[in-house]
Amino acid sequence: MTMLYGYFRSSAAYRVRIALNLKGLDHDQVPINLVKGEQCLDANLGRNAQGLVPSLVTDNGLVLNQSLAICKYLDERHPEPPLLPADAGGRARVRALAQLVACEIHPLNNLRVLKYLVDELGLDEDAKLAWYRHWIIEGFDALETLLKRELGTGDFCHGNTPTLADICLVPQVFNAERFECDLSAYPTLRRIVDHCNALEAFQQAAPNRQSDAG
Amino acid sequence: MTMLYGYFRSSAAYRVRIALNLKGLDHDQVPINLVKGEQCLDANLGRNAQGLVPSLVTDNGLVLNQSLAICKYLDERHPEPPLLPADAGGRARVRALAQLVACEIHPLNNLRVLKYLVDELGLDEDAKLAWYRHWIIEGFDALETLLKRELGTGDFCHGNTPTLADICLVPQVFNAERFECDLSAYPTLRRIVDHCNALEAFQQAAPNRQSDAG
Repeated sequence: MTMLYGYFRSSAAYRVRIALNLKGLDHDQVPINLVKGEQCLDANLGRNAQGLVPSLVTDNGLVLNQSLAICKYLDERHPEPPLLPADAGGRARVRALAQLVACEIHPLNNLRVLKYLVDELGLDEDAKLAWYRHWIIEGFDALETLLKRELGTGDFCHGNTPTLADICLVPQVFNAERFECDLSAYPTLRRIVDHCNALEAFQQAAPNRQSDAG
Repeated sequence: MTMLYGYFRSSAAYRVRIALNLKGLDHDQVPINLVKGEQCLDANLGRNAQGLVPSLVTDNGLVLNQSLAICKYLDERHPEPPLLPADAGGRARVRALAQLVACEIHPLNNLRVLKYLVDELGLDEDAKLAWYRHWIIEGFDALETLLKRELGTGDFCHGNTPTLADICLVPQVFNAERFECDLSAYPTLRRIVDHCNALEAFQQAAPNRQSDAG
């Protein structure tokens, strides 16, 4: 059985849950409690040398890390429905949108970084939230511009079926809302996220639907 | 003519330069001076809504952003030599190694983040360097562990030809050395980087070989 080691609130694990659901792949989930530090225990470090989640262990024992690499692996092994468009230009666009979230927003706002800001730099709650919101605004401003001006955008980030870009966008918007970011300047993001969240695959992947949701 | 909009010291532009060279693709480079803020001028924002580099504009006018998406596009359009292994498991490994750098180290240490730390949070030079080195150590510890323990490692990060993982690793090591990080704990990284830098494609992509190098 395919096993997903994750955490209900981890955006990266959330991405992989969406991909598994879109592909209709049966899997078990093992929660790794990030707040309790379970990601740094030997059992998890054996799977994930960085002490992060998610990891996916396939039914033939392959250990996979990094959410986008996992999604791409699933897409290669289970091509339907595809997570990337059929044309090279479209694929480049979807990858760039996904990476805008995965390389420019999320890495700055995940738990270990917020912890460093508080524990090492002594930031108070307001300064931490200002940091969080700064990178959301920078990233979402660009995303909103791109999604509004580019012809590739449809019901979803690209065309009328969900892609890797939506898989990254939905968890990031969820996370931003959890940190009470004002998203009123992003009607295109909102429209697309609502469209995604109308689908069972996205609904079932939502943090509050996971067994470890507090 | 394919045009690369970059900056000599940008790790992300450096990745794309290596990929272009490995593929033997003729291209022109247009420097965007990040220190002078040229990335935020309208000309650059039209290509890159985030105000970042690199962007690649292909000879048929396609505008591409995000370094890994650009590399992947080049790999799809010009398959030889391949930047990813032939097997799905190998591809997943290479992507995970590349993303460990591109999603977990580099985003925390690039210019706009260091600027925020100094300008908004008032960090002094020592605290800024401590931040920089903290994420290098976290990331490189994991990379060294993975590259040492996994059988896939060869002369390069994966096997005996350069892949997307090496394309990410070399600029990150260059950057770490520029910030005077102690890399003595990473003999495997060092060995692989030396192997890469023996190749003309990597040498020609080095920051100090670019026309805008100060």
